[in-house]
Amino acid sequence: MAHAFPFSAIVGQEEMKRALMITAIDPSIGGVLAFGDRGTGKSTAVRALAGLLPEIAVVDGCPYNCAPDRINPDCPHCKAQDHHTVAQRPTPVIDLPLGATEDRVVGALDLERALTKGEKAFEPGLLARAHRGFLYIDEVNLLEDYLVDLLLDVAASGENVVEREGLSVRHPARFVLVGSGNPEEGELRPQLLDRFGLSVEIASPKVVADRIEVIRRRDAYERDRAAFLATWAEAEAAEQARITTARDLLPEVIVPDALLVHVAELCLALGADGLRGELTLMRAARALAALDGAREVTDHHLREVAPSALRHRLRRDPLDEAGSTTRVTRAMDTVLA
Amino acid sequence: MAHAFPFSAIVGQEEMKRALMITAIDPSIGGVLAFGDRGTGKSTAVRALAGLLPEIAVVDGCPYNCAPDRINPDCPHCKAQDHHTVAQRPTPVIDLPLGATEDRVVGALDLERALTKGEKAFEPGLLARAHRGFLYIDEVNLLEDYLVDLLLDVAASGENVVEREGLSVRHPARFVLVGSGNPEEGELRPQLLDRFGLSVEIASPKVVADRIEVIRRRDAYERDRAAFLATWAEAEAAEQARITTARDLLPEVIVPDALLVHVAELCLALGADGLRGELTLMRAARALAALDGAREVTDHHLREVAPSALRHRLRRDPLDEAGSTTRVTRAMDTVLA
Amino acid sequence: MAHAFPFSAIVGQEEMKRALMITAIDPSIGGVLAFGDRGTGKSTAVRALAGLLPEIAVVDGCPYNCAPDRINPDCPHCKAQDHHTVAQRPTPVIDLPLGATEDRVVGALDLERALTKGEKAFEPGLLARAHRGFLYIDEVNLLEDYLVDLLLDVAASGENVVEREGLSVRHPARFVLVGSGNPEEGELRPQLLDRFGLSVEIASPKVVADRIEVIRRRDAYERDRAAFLATWAEAEAAEQARITTARDLLPEVIVPDALLVHVAELCLALGADGLRGELTLMRAARALAALDGAREVTDHHLREVAPSALRHRLRRDPLDEAGSTTRVTRAMDTVLA
Amino acid sequence: MAHAFPFSAIVGQEEMKRALMITAIDPSIGGVLAFGDRGTGKSTAVRALAGLLPEIAVVDGCPYNCAPDRINPDCPHCKAQDHHTVAQRPTPVIDLPLGATEDRVVGALDLERALTKGEKAFEPGLLARAHRGFLYIDEVNLLEDYLVDLLLDVAASGENVVEREGLSVRHPARFVLVGSGNPEEGELRPQLLDRFGLSVEIASPKVVADRIEVIRRRDAYERDRAAFLATWAEAEAAEQARITTARDLLPEVIVPDALLVHVAELCLALGADGLRGELTLMRAARALAALDGAREVTDHHLREVAPSALRHRLRRDPLDEAGSTTRVTRAMDTVLA
Amino acid sequence: MAHAFPFSAIVGQEEMKRALMITAIDPSIGGVLAFGDRGTGKSTAVRALAGLLPEIAVVDGCPYNCAPDRINPDCPHCKAQDHHTVAQRPTPVIDLPLGATEDRVVGALDLERALTKGEKAFEPGLLARAHRGFLYIDEVNLLEDYLVDLLLDVAASGENVVEREGLSVRHPARFVLVGSGNPEEGELRPQLLDRFGLSVEIASPKVVADRIEVIRRRDAYERDRAAFLATWAEAEAAEQARITTARDLLPEVIVPDALLVHVAELCLALGADGLRGELTLMRAARALAALDGAREVTDHHLREVAPSALRHRLRRDPLDEAGSTTRVTRAMDTVLA
Amino acid sequence: MAHAFPFSAIVGQEEMKRALMITAIDPSIGGVLAFGDRGTGKSTAVRALAGLLPEIAVVDGCPYNCAPDRINPDCPHCKAQDHHTVAQRPTPVIDLPLGATEDRVVGALDLERALTKGEKAFEPGLLARAHRGFLYIDEVNLLEDYLVDLLLDVAASGENVVEREGLSVRHPARFVLVGSGNPEEGELRPQLLDRFGLSVEIASPKVVADRIEVIRRRDAYERDRAAFLATWAEAEAAEQARITTARDLLPEVIVPDALLVHVAELCLALGADGLRGELTLMRAARALAALDGAREVTDHHLREVAPSALRHRLRRDPLDEAGSTTRVTRAMDTVLA
Repeated sequence: MAHAFPFSAIVGQEEMKRALMITAIDPSIGGVLAFGDRGTGKSTAVRALAGLLPEIAVVDGCPYNCAPDRINPDCPHCKAQDHHTVAQRPTPVIDLPLGATEDRVVGALDLERALTKGEKAFEPGLLARAHRGFLYIDEVNLLEDYLVDLLLDVAASGENVVEREGLSVRHPARFVLVGSGNPEEGELRPQLLDRFGLSVEIASPKVVADRIEVIRRRDAYERDRAAFLATWAEAEAAEQARITTARDLLPEVIVPDALLVHVAELCLALGADGLRGELTLMRAARALAALDGAREVTDHHLREVAPSALRHRLRRDPLDEAGSTTRVTRAMDTVLA
Repeated sequence: MAHAFPFSAIVGQEEMKRALMITAIDPSIGGVLAFGDRGTGKSTAVRALAGLLPEIAVVDGCPYNCAPDRINPDCPHCKAQDHHTVAQRPTPVIDLPLGATEDRVVGALDLERALTKGEKAFEPGLLARAHRGFLYIDEVNLLEDYLVDLLLDVAASGENVVEREGLSVRHPARFVLVGSGNPEEGELRPQLLDRFGLSVEIASPKVVADRIEVIRRRDAYERDRAAFLATWAEAEAAEQARITTARDLLPEVIVPDALLVHVAELCLALGADGLRGELTLMRAARALAALDGAREVTDHHLREVAPSALRHRLRRDPLDEAGSTTRVTRAMDTVLA
Repeated sequence: MAHAFPFSAIVGQEEMKRALMITAIDPSIGGVLAFGDRGTGKSTAVRALAGLLPEIAVVDGCPYNCAPDRINPDCPHCKAQDHHTVAQRPTPVIDLPLGATEDRVVGALDLERALTKGEKAFEPGLLARAHRGFLYIDEVNLLEDYLVDLLLDVAASGENVVEREGLSVRHPARFVLVGSGNPEEGELRPQLLDRFGLSVEIASPKVVADRIEVIRRRDAYERDRAAFLATWAEAEAAEQARITTARDLLPEVIVPDALLVHVAELCLALGADGLRGELTLMRAARALAALDGAREVTDHHLREVAPSALRHRLRRDPLDEAGSTTRVTRAMDTVLA
Repeated sequence: MAHAFPFSAIVGQEEMKRALMITAIDPSIGGVLAFGDRGTGKSTAVRALAGLLPEIAVVDGCPYNCAPDRINPDCPHCKAQDHHTVAQRPTPVIDLPLGATEDRVVGALDLERALTKGEKAFEPGLLARAHRGFLYIDEVNLLEDYLVDLLLDVAASGENVVEREGLSVRHPARFVLVGSGNPEEGELRPQLLDRFGLSVEIASPKVVADRIEVIRRRDAYERDRAAFLATWAEAEAAEQARITTARDLLPEVIVPDALLVHVAELCLALGADGLRGELTLMRAARALAALDGAREVTDHHLREVAPSALRHRLRRDPLDEAGSTTRVTRAMDTVLA
Repeated sequence: MAHAFPFSAIVGQEEMKRALMITAIDPSIGGVLAFGDRGTGKSTAVRALAGLLPEIAVVDGCPYNCAPDRINPDCPHCKAQDHHTVAQRPTPVIDLPLGATEDRVVGALDLERALTKGEKAFEPGLLARAHRGFLYIDEVNLLEDYLVDLLLDVAASGENVVEREGLSVRHPARFVLVGSGNPEEGELRPQLLDRFGLSVEIASPKVVADRIEVIRRRDAYERDRAAFLATWAEAEAAEQARITTARDLLPEVIVPDALLVHVAELCLALGADGLRGELTLMRAARALAALDGAREVTDHHLREVAPSALRHRLRRDPLDEAGSTTRVTRAMDTVLA
Repeated sequence: MAHAFPFSAIVGQEEMKRALMITAIDPSIGGVLAFGDRGTGKSTAVRALAGLLPEIAVVDGCPYNCAPDRINPDCPHCKAQDHHTVAQRPTPVIDLPLGATEDRVVGALDLERALTKGEKAFEPGLLARAHRGFLYIDEVNLLEDYLVDLLLDVAASGENVVEREGLSVRHPARFVLVGSGNPEEGELRPQLLDRFGLSVEIASPKVVADRIEVIRRRDAYERDRAAFLATWAEAEAAEQARITTARDLLPEVIVPDALLVHVAELCLALGADGLRGELTLMRAARALAALDGAREVTDHHLREVAPSALRHRLRRDPLDEAGSTTRVTRAMDTVLA
């Protein structure tokens, strides 16, 4: 991860980059769904962001990423230790491959240890490893139904519960879910769609100069990583500073009543299901304000994040052939006018 | 649970809240089915209600929630003990996730203990843990068929029977079943529909001020739980008192003959299948009377609960395009006129 | 069972009650299939009848319900005992839940005992427990195919054969099969339909007074069982006496040749498949005669039972839109005129 | 079996009875397929025939029915014995239930014995028990595909080969296959159809007197078996004598060349696939001649058996709407004219 | 096999017999696919041919049919022996039944030996037993997909590789694949079709005299095998001599350039996919020349084998309604004119 | 492999041969997909190329093909050894058969060793064996979905991760993926299509002389391999020299800016998804330049490889009925004009 492609060297893809930074500032926003063409660097962007973030403090050796100041009292690793030492670890970015078995995702009894040593040991899965970081699912719209069910469960409760064969393990599993997919190849179940805080549409650059720049930077990176990373080190440090500053500022950012009215009117005008859109919109605008160093959320922030926060929550309207983004923009023009 | 969002701080959703309270007063009514949008706080409401209810007395350590004055003589835990101490436990609210295995729901042989210690031990499942409380199923219309069969069985008999691999366990499993779902995403099997005593339709608030109030309260709750709970403590105590008073009053509430005639005429007019609707309607009206402190059920109570008790029991009538609620209201206007 | 709702306190449902009593007098008739609405007390009626029947004599402790005067020579329990003591047991009513595994229905090797004690022990299933009583299947039209195959096998041979994993158990399994279902939700396989001797159509009462009476009695029963049972004790004793008298009378009831001609003409006129309808019709009429205390079967008895015995055996006739009951009645009018 | 319903007491069903007797005289004809209504006594007829046949001589205790004068050199039972005693056993009639597992049909490793005694023992299946007798499959058109494959294999090779888990057992399995089914409920795979030597169509009697006679005899049989069997003992003995006489005569019966020409012309005229129909027709006519005590096969015998031997081998002819039986009769009128 | 029906006693079926002999002369041609009616003696013909072939020399006791002069260095049997004795064995003809498990086909770990003796022993399957002989699949068009995949693999590589559960066995598996099927009941996957070198169409004889002759010979064979085999011994010896002579001659047979041009033009004219058809056609013509004792292949040989070699390789041509055989003949008339 | 058919003796198939050589020069291009008829020597070409390549240096005995100068620190084999000796091994060409189990592809726990020796040993699979060489999948469009998922995973990450049953193995798996298929028999999933760097269309030669030459060379090769290989040794050496020279030259080849503009314009004009096409096109043109001994990439190289690099990345355009190759050519005419 230390050698990931630099976040600041990514050409274009502004909406995607902003959405990822917002979830890094307020992870309760829940995740980012990136729709669009293959080969546009979604996976690269997630890894790049994680490489940018400050390392996290964990109990040394804990495969569940327990924070030293908030150890899970039921942690299969930590509860068996008398005292814990602290270690630093990069923010995890875990890939969940489409064909992963349930055992690999949630963890499983270590049968071999059970058989040979008579010990009942739990082998943690991908959900444990993603805790406090990112879980990345490429082609999320092709994910098997039972994995979707599983993810919905964990996303709703913030913990992973495994109970089978007399084994009962429960550990926190909170992560930013990043998914990507091509909507032409399969729709997302609405329940899962709803769990993604933000959605972004990405596409290959349409300008020749940008395309060449992408290829040039990737070529340079692959030919000599060390030199390339050195070139971008300063830009990366600036981005990292923006995020840590924003995280500190976040609790103090004020959400004025008038803005809340705008948030509610916007969601009502668009007929978005439930109140999750409203909560997300408010939080995303607040996180963006923090990223901008502002102490109060304004309509400007709202306008910036509303497409990402609402576009995937609209009901299909047979009388309105406009795309989702257009409909959100139109509603903003009315409500925020 | 002690820190659940306060029941009295829930904005709107009156029908849902009343239905939950009614089942808390007379659990034989069997359950509440909430249809409607995602993100409208159904899960929050159930947890809130359970947090409000007085604790239940159980045999200390019994994973089957045996009541000290009505110990199950076949209880795998209690029958092995010589004497039992009494403990207090919050009313359980158990989530049944869509992807739960049968073993997790009904319980299973603890294979590890069997293999390592040669003991035949039963590991109780979610049904045991929900006994005397609530079993909550989100997206109940997406539940696997074999889990539906299982639930129908347990709901009909009030006990969970597990017989396999020479293992035979039988324990009571009586709970209020709370389900939620979006009817657009899949229909409920009629047998399961019939087991829900009451149904409610819920939607996001349509008034901006209400929506803002929801977001504000949730924000306040998440920022400082202790302060928020303190603010609402008095209101919660009042609600709890209403429920316990109503429970005491219930056996004395009188159901006049004229009211029974109305109940029967209403069901006949609506052509509801079987007599379960009639029984439920009578019991729900009686529980509502108790909640209102009334000693006799009146047409007023009937009118209040009839939509919840009957709306999901109507046959589709191709000549009548009105919605279920309208049809119940129309029948009430005729019968109770 | 001793505390079941009294058979004589059931309001209406005369055809259902008569069909059940007929199978109690001559169990070779094979079973009753009840079609109709949910919540009309089918399960209650079966349990009520069983509660009414005299207890059966069994070998004490035998889980296969061996009769002391007709012990199964291969009975896994009884063949291992030197002498047997006699016990009295209520007539069993066993529920076969839709989701039952094959092991639970037919019985299974007690793996735990095999592994821990090295003994090859058979754990009898629901079929063993239903022997000499009733097997009740709610929603029988939703039963899994492999369970239907299994039941057809046992119904045809009167015994349950389990052969697997070097285990070979064979025990008698003769019972009255009672099924219920809603034909709108799935058809019964014709082979299974054919195995039910009688079929009845049931519906909720259409008269307000009857409906109220149902609710009143059930309310009274649930509030104070002992008092309710005392009220109905005399009526129950009378019904029990009718059945035991009829059982004694049955072997002496004469079936005149002219009646047999009517039976055959009726079946020919209706084009019922095979001869099972004819046998059932003759036996049901004879059992009804016994119930009525008559020593000879007459056209009156035939007329009473013909709809139940034949209605489910008619081929669909595209040129005749009348319902099955109407077609049976019409044929009776012609043949018995 | 000793108490089976007497073969000679079966009313009507002449084609079925003759077909069964023919296969009893020359089992190489391969089997009888009975198409038609349920409840017409097909199973009764097979059991009745087997009850009529002389007992077979077997090696005492051999579960594979080894003949003492032709012991299978690989027989798992007999090869382990030094000398064998001879026992008499009724001709087996084995039911193959639709839901039978593969293990039950072909036999299986006796796992329990393997685990507890460390012995590799084979538990023979239904195919072993049917050797030298009859295998009866009710509703053969509903048989699972893997069982059909299995039966085709065994029918083609005359032996059952089980090879799995290091277990290799091979034993002869030659039997008359009797199947019944209702063609409306599913077609037979042509490969299986082809393996049945003869097919018969059966229906309930259409004459009232016959129907009454059926019911009367069955009633008498069930009321007092001993008396009923005594009444029919003489008729049974006569039938048995006919079969044993015919078996002895069979090798001497002459098939004249002119008759072979008729056989071939008939099959060509009907366009029956392959030559199996021709072989079966010749053999069936020869066996019928033997049954009639004739020393030479004539067109009369051919005419009698041709419908049974050919009716199920015709290709569907879209230009000829006549039924199969009519087409066979028509061809006979031309060829044998 | 020593008692198989004589190859020379088969009536008609010239194309089938010639194709089988050609593959016996040059097994690299790969196999014969026989399409047509059931009951036309395909299985008999394969067994007859194998009975005719000279025995093969094998390492005594080797279940993999290792040739003494070409022992497989990895042979699980032979590599464990210090020196080998030579045995003679009939050319194997192995049936692959449709329902065969993968274990039975490719072989499997002998679990029983592993468990009881702690030895890792491989139990060879049907592929091992067919090596150097024939593998016969009746109804090959109904073969399960995974078995087809397996066969394609083995046919392409000439060896069977089994790798699972830490077991790694690899042995040669080269055989002539003979399949039969009725194209009306299911198509063959093109990949498998392509692996059969030759295809033949077979049908029952259409001439009465031939049909009678078939039946007569089979009857004579079944009544007295020894006598029948004696009658045909001389004819069999002549056929055997033709094959062994042809095998010796084959390496010397010349394929003139002009003939290769004809082969290529024929395949181009017919648009056969790939070059496998061309190779097969050349080899089959060369083997036929050897069978005829010719030292050079001529157009005559080409003409004889072209329908068999090409008929199953044509693409369906929507504009040409002629059958495959007609299309091949037409192309020959043009190319070879 | 030492005896593979010589690469230089392959008649025609220039695009296929060039594509394979390009991936041998720059394996990061990822693979070659060959679409077209069966029997056109695709498998032969891959094996031929591998036979041509210089041997690779590996740690002696390492089943994961670890390079001595870049040993995988987690290699289950090498990390257990103190020092390593170097061995030379031919470039591996591994076949992935369609029916391969997941265990065989990714590797599996060696259960037998675990059970008998109590050791937890990993048995590497096909992916390990293909590392640093070629993985060949015939009929890749028929590959099971779970294998496709697996391959996508490995192709994206360059390593194979196996985590199950307490077993955790991770080893590099980088190989050139070569697939072949007939597009008429099933489409490739777009995700997999995208992973193949280049695609080629192949067909049987259409010229008689070429076809005869193919057959002649194959015949000669099969009759006397040694002689045939000797004949082609010089040609092979020349080809090998071209490849090794090109590999050395590659890092120095210059990609001028103007060429990058052409690359980007070409992809934009064709609307190819994402930027992977652009990267591949640039790399393939650069590798071709190296093969040609050029120090700078020109439009000539671009023109040569563009069809292979882009043809399988075009979206279907309903308004443009031209084939993919034509569309690429047309775009080149515009862009490079």
